[in-house]
Amino acid sequence: MTITPPALSVFETLESEVRSYCRGWPAVFDRAQGARLTDEDGHSYLDFFAGAGSLNYGHNNPVLKRALIDYIERDGITHGLDMATTAKRAFLETFQNVILRPRDLPYKVMFPGPTGTNAVESALKLARKVKGRESVVSFTNAFHGMSLGSLAVTGNAFKRAGAGIPLVHGTPMPFDNYFDGTVPDFLWFERLLEDQGSGLNKPAAVIVETVQGEGGINVARAEWLRALQELCERQDMLLIVDDIQMGCGRTGGFFSFEEAGIVPDIVTLSKSISGYGLPMSLCLFKPELDIWEPGEHNGTFRGNNPAFVTAAAALDAYWADGRVEQQTKERGLQVEQALLAICAEEPTAQFRGRGLVWGMEFEDPARASAVCARAFELGLLLETSGPQSEVVKLLPPLTITTEELDEGLRTLARCVRETA
Amino acid sequence: MTITPPALSVFETLESEVRSYCRGWPAVFDRAQGARLTDEDGHSYLDFFAGAGSLNYGHNNPVLKRALIDYIERDGITHGLDMATTAKRAFLETFQNVILRPRDLPYKVMFPGPTGTNAVESALKLARKVKGRESVVSFTNAFHGMSLGSLAVTGNAFKRAGAGIPLVHGTPMPFDNYFDGTVPDFLWFERLLEDQGSGLNKPAAVIVETVQGEGGINVARAEWLRALQELCERQDMLLIVDDIQMGCGRTGGFFSFEEAGIVPDIVTLSKSISGYGLPMSLCLFKPELDIWEPGEHNGTFRGNNPAFVTAAAALDAYWADGRVEQQTKERGLQVEQALLAICAEEPTAQFRGRGLVWGMEFEDPARASAVCARAFELGLLLETSGPQSEVVKLLPPLTITTEELDEGLRTLARCVRETA
Amino acid sequence: MTITPPALSVFETLESEVRSYCRGWPAVFDRAQGARLTDEDGHSYLDFFAGAGSLNYGHNNPVLKRALIDYIERDGITHGLDMATTAKRAFLETFQNVILRPRDLPYKVMFPGPTGTNAVESALKLARKVKGRESVVSFTNAFHGMSLGSLAVTGNAFKRAGAGIPLVHGTPMPFDNYFDGTVPDFLWFERLLEDQGSGLNKPAAVIVETVQGEGGINVARAEWLRALQELCERQDMLLIVDDIQMGCGRTGGFFSFEEAGIVPDIVTLSKSISGYGLPMSLCLFKPELDIWEPGEHNGTFRGNNPAFVTAAAALDAYWADGRVEQQTKERGLQVEQALLAICAEEPTAQFRGRGLVWGMEFEDPARASAVCARAFELGLLLETSGPQSEVVKLLPPLTITTEELDEGLRTLARCVRETA
Amino acid sequence: MTITPPALSVFETLESEVRSYCRGWPAVFDRAQGARLTDEDGHSYLDFFAGAGSLNYGHNNPVLKRALIDYIERDGITHGLDMATTAKRAFLETFQNVILRPRDLPYKVMFPGPTGTNAVESALKLARKVKGRESVVSFTNAFHGMSLGSLAVTGNAFKRAGAGIPLVHGTPMPFDNYFDGTVPDFLWFERLLEDQGSGLNKPAAVIVETVQGEGGINVARAEWLRALQELCERQDMLLIVDDIQMGCGRTGGFFSFEEAGIVPDIVTLSKSISGYGLPMSLCLFKPELDIWEPGEHNGTFRGNNPAFVTAAAALDAYWADGRVEQQTKERGLQVEQALLAICAEEPTAQFRGRGLVWGMEFEDPARASAVCARAFELGLLLETSGPQSEVVKLLPPLTITTEELDEGLRTLARCVRETA
Repeated sequence: MTITPPALSVFETLESEVRSYCRGWPAVFDRAQGARLTDEDGHSYLDFFAGAGSLNYGHNNPVLKRALIDYIERDGITHGLDMATTAKRAFLETFQNVILRPRDLPYKVMFPGPTGTNAVESALKLARKVKGRESVVSFTNAFHGMSLGSLAVTGNAFKRAGAGIPLVHGTPMPFDNYFDGTVPDFLWFERLLEDQGSGLNKPAAVIVETVQGEGGINVARAEWLRALQELCERQDMLLIVDDIQMGCGRTGGFFSFEEAGIVPDIVTLSKSISGYGLPMSLCLFKPELDIWEPGEHNGTFRGNNPAFVTAAAALDAYWADGRVEQQTKERGLQVEQALLAICAEEPTAQFRGRGLVWGMEFEDPARASAVCARAFELGLLLETSGPQSEVVKLLPPLTITTEELDEGLRTLARCVRETA
Repeated sequence: MTITPPALSVFETLESEVRSYCRGWPAVFDRAQGARLTDEDGHSYLDFFAGAGSLNYGHNNPVLKRALIDYIERDGITHGLDMATTAKRAFLETFQNVILRPRDLPYKVMFPGPTGTNAVESALKLARKVKGRESVVSFTNAFHGMSLGSLAVTGNAFKRAGAGIPLVHGTPMPFDNYFDGTVPDFLWFERLLEDQGSGLNKPAAVIVETVQGEGGINVARAEWLRALQELCERQDMLLIVDDIQMGCGRTGGFFSFEEAGIVPDIVTLSKSISGYGLPMSLCLFKPELDIWEPGEHNGTFRGNNPAFVTAAAALDAYWADGRVEQQTKERGLQVEQALLAICAEEPTAQFRGRGLVWGMEFEDPARASAVCARAFELGLLLETSGPQSEVVKLLPPLTITTEELDEGLRTLARCVRETA
Repeated sequence: MTITPPALSVFETLESEVRSYCRGWPAVFDRAQGARLTDEDGHSYLDFFAGAGSLNYGHNNPVLKRALIDYIERDGITHGLDMATTAKRAFLETFQNVILRPRDLPYKVMFPGPTGTNAVESALKLARKVKGRESVVSFTNAFHGMSLGSLAVTGNAFKRAGAGIPLVHGTPMPFDNYFDGTVPDFLWFERLLEDQGSGLNKPAAVIVETVQGEGGINVARAEWLRALQELCERQDMLLIVDDIQMGCGRTGGFFSFEEAGIVPDIVTLSKSISGYGLPMSLCLFKPELDIWEPGEHNGTFRGNNPAFVTAAAALDAYWADGRVEQQTKERGLQVEQALLAICAEEPTAQFRGRGLVWGMEFEDPARASAVCARAFELGLLLETSGPQSEVVKLLPPLTITTEELDEGLRTLARCVRETA
Repeated sequence: MTITPPALSVFETLESEVRSYCRGWPAVFDRAQGARLTDEDGHSYLDFFAGAGSLNYGHNNPVLKRALIDYIERDGITHGLDMATTAKRAFLETFQNVILRPRDLPYKVMFPGPTGTNAVESALKLARKVKGRESVVSFTNAFHGMSLGSLAVTGNAFKRAGAGIPLVHGTPMPFDNYFDGTVPDFLWFERLLEDQGSGLNKPAAVIVETVQGEGGINVARAEWLRALQELCERQDMLLIVDDIQMGCGRTGGFFSFEEAGIVPDIVTLSKSISGYGLPMSLCLFKPELDIWEPGEHNGTFRGNNPAFVTAAAALDAYWADGRVEQQTKERGLQVEQALLAICAEEPTAQFRGRGLVWGMEFEDPARASAVCARAFELGLLLETSGPQSEVVKLLPPLTITTEELDEGLRTLARCVRETA
């Protein structure tokens, strides 16, 4: 397939230079279904990016679409601030019954503004309020969002520089395996906490991703996460898991931390929580932390009711039993096999991942970009991540068929070969 | 009409204590159309709050609803990051043709995350980057959002305290009429800027609302806004108008600053820009300020395409000619007449406003809450604002009929009388 | 008298460009006595600067000199950290008997590092610790020192820029008469404190100079100071008077705030407290504020015992009775008369002052520098102050004779005439 | 010898609770000579603390005393701001001839306020100004001073808490041997600098002590210092050596970094630079860094001329040849032998040091305090350091005789035995 770059005039003349994905994927997309998008010229693309993890159930999933149209047709509340609505109640009950109760998770549910960064901002505020301390520890190559609170715990130097002010109150610690196993876990962090002369401001909380997506698909081991939870308990710090990209089944279980058997104090969810790509986010926390005053954090669109409708439908359709989790693990094995074969032929690459999130790291960062560029020409949407964009990131919808997955992986193999 | 408070069980047991509006309006809402909501018991409510200004065209506006359902039905892109899509192109072209070009406004358009606070965060980042300074001046009783960057330029002490860190890099200045006309405009601000010994960190920008909604419906005069623009030019500071609540026709013209004849350097829009209550926001700026690097600010849901569809439909339907603006001014006169009559009978109250945003301030703050509580019992949704919640805020949909408006205003009059 | 600029070689080649006074006074000084300095070429200079207020009793005052030499001769402790010494005890007892008790001042005494900025740092730390708040209010054109804590409450933009980090946690308010009496005192400050929506972080303390020396000899009225004290009490903020330059008798009474009849919560002293120009500083505070833990603030040279010796001698010699205060007021009248005459002839100048600190402000800042330059040529040491160095500052030793004072004032008059 | 605790009344009633050393040494000291102090009851104390390193040439050193008295007698300038004086010139020339030139050090000399923390503040300001970055890296258990700028790069949690504001813009890194050699030097630091996703704000400078005095006598190896210098060069960061306590011969050479063969970009000196315990400090830097504007940093007592006189005399008397350095090393060997013997008998203690600064660390921190308390009873002044005050610190005057040193070491041995 050959793609003719369309005239992007209004995007180039009117939209800000800040736009990014559209530069690597110079098409004007029009429709989408499942794992496929179609541009206005009728070209079809297989989606291995899934809205950066926002489309775990595929584009315009028919089950959710039906529920959404029904709701709109019947003039259900669209914009509800934080008013009680029947749609919100249905979501809350479903979330409790399908997600929280079976996992024995005691969380209260907060609806921040419907974006990931807003969920993180609310989590950080709450942790600081509960502990009465300003400092928060994050990890190397973390990504938590672009508003000032979230950006201060984000690692990327380029994004941090955009703040325009010195970002403070956050201290980075080495993520799992940062030194390839040569340094004991938490050696530095724990020593700083225990040494009264270390100069570390005692943190209110630690914020962590179980798998760092933007940071380069860095996978934390279950024992590392457990040790982190124990360290937090021992040192009176709250543990925040930012499950915005890795939650909602991306790694297998609904929450990415289930596998490790930990129960974070605070959890943020967004991206795929609405299931349909509609803006929505949640901040979950243990009941004893719920010391918010009414309205102490708010947001105009926190009651995005159409998203509640698709969210409840997605939970009902996909999480009432364990099929999705099982299928994600199987699809993950399929990816792993393919990457094993690709890397066997390509010694400058290595791969890692969990569930349906995988990364292929190239020694030469330019190679990763070249692979993605070639993939686009061949109708496959792939993106890079990592501090130098050196990692090709695989994030297909969880609902992708084995055939589609196989097709995409074969295209990837071809791209790797052709860019050698 | 008498409302029986419903059993709010799951809201009370599962949702965080942070919830607020639902406490003053103890109903479970189910459907809505135009200026009316219906709860699950079939009670009807007249909406004088309009989603805090997010529903300028009423709930589930039929014209927008049609466009939205058509788009969803045909599997248009739902979640598009910042990819080029046909829906985004249609919005951009419409925004340029219907809004920017007729007003001779040169702005570039940025899509931040789809909430107001995210638009403000991007505006502040850009201003700081352009000027290379950290400090931003805001005004007394300003409200710009709840993430850390926006919160630092927000006035409310209760909301600021929620930050959990000292909020810095912002300095408040007196808003128009803060001293009831006894002090010359900008006396203090200008003197601080000119005095090399004043201790003010030179600001990168000034952020202002033309009418402070959350701050108590404080209306800046056109000449004050013009003088502010001149001060910004003279002192090499960028002027940011936060038009999130007052833009999209709320005060008459599409932008609230049109009447003053000023052209801010940066403008933020959100709330009613999608027209249908869907999350969406824009940051507009003069082309010479567009020094963003690709991806220097981003957000997962910045390409909320269903919102682009309703936004374009709303612009086409309501802004291709000047009818809405004319009608808003007429409806505003209707409100003004009614408030004049109410305040003639109630000497402890005074009112102010512009277009279709009005406030009634009571000497006793408790009275404002009592009026809203009684209004709810009578089926009218009203909220307070102001630093002590001493102002009853009128924010009906722009599309409200004169009859509905009259009905609500009569109910308001009754509430004022009955709470005396 | 004509001065030949000496070869300043080692100063120019080895000392940093940061040096300043030596540029305006290009002589190499060798000896000094009372109000006169002598350079290495034998030229004599009359000192109207007095070490920026550090030499209230003149250079090498014979009474203090005797005590100092005796102490050194007998091998009294020179460096004592915060150990108890007989010299420190003598100072403490004298300070209590001569200064605190007769004025009924209840202060505890702290010895910070022996510089003014260190005293201010300790005052700010203590205020923040006591109140548990970060913010401190200072005034336009305040000067409190050059270390980061003090610099954040200092007004001068040039000096602030030297910090290299954004200075935060301080907010400037208008000093007395900042708007020439056109705005009621504390209108803005009080309104910000009372308005819960003002955006002002509630301050722990207010720091003020009764006469701003570096800021341009701005004299606060007694009623303004009293109103400030009342405002602090009403709003639960500590009142810190920085009496480093204006204390030790400069304005008449030992403390410059005595005349206003106020009792600040915290007072900083330095400059002339040792009397002999030796480094020493004190931080005084009400006993109930003394919540310091042992060693929570310290400093290597806080026990500069030779300074304790001269300090005690100075208090004994000059403050056991009211003669100095009386004499300072008389000398002040002499200055006032002379300035009145000078300004009668020079309409672009105006003057102000109290006790023996006076300023002459010129419309054209260059004129003030020209006056000082000419004065140096004529053997008179004068310096400028104010945000644009537009004020000629008169700060002669308190012990100056009427003849010397007259001589200097006549020279000043001549300089004003000759620079017209 | 038995000491009767004297009545400390005025210290207890008038002086602030912040006082500390006087609590451990409950005597009122009166006179001192060389390594001995005498209290008012005539008891004599051997000084192994030397004014925290401010009295390297002993108390009231007769050579310096003579020069000082002569200067005072002849009415030399006492207080000179930053005016050129004959005393300052003599110091500058001596410093250049005796210290800088023989060591081929190119430094410019700045006179900050005459305390260590002021020197550090000026060093940090300059580094930030030169590099245009806010962040500075310090090390675990560093001590740099108590004003806000210095405190932000100081490790001790108790002292940091005294700031009353969150201390930011500083990041601690592990000092040499922090992990007992199990982790490669600078592994974490270098990785953070190289990883664009690490979250570390790029530092303007690194500030380090070659031997951490307050931190517990932690001795950096020469190769570690060299590697640090190389890292700074490679990463475009300035290297600041804080030589306030370890400079002026404490470790052997005049500068403590000479042995490592490095040339820091900026050096701070204070404590023993005046030689006589008089307040004085210097900030030295490479000429190309001297971008200060005149007066951009200043301080009332930066021209403490009596200190210049004793400083020049000390340099002349002790540094014109290499005898002091040689002698310090010999005395250091004497200490090392004694500590070796003591620790051979006391397995819970270990020791470390360089030149004439040594520490004995006890497993049980209370033991270190007990040793010091017993030492005081026996007429020996000893202090603890380290994050838990677990290290007994030996800091005798460099001019101590072998007999005095032996006496003190025997007393120390006795104290260790008697507190077992």
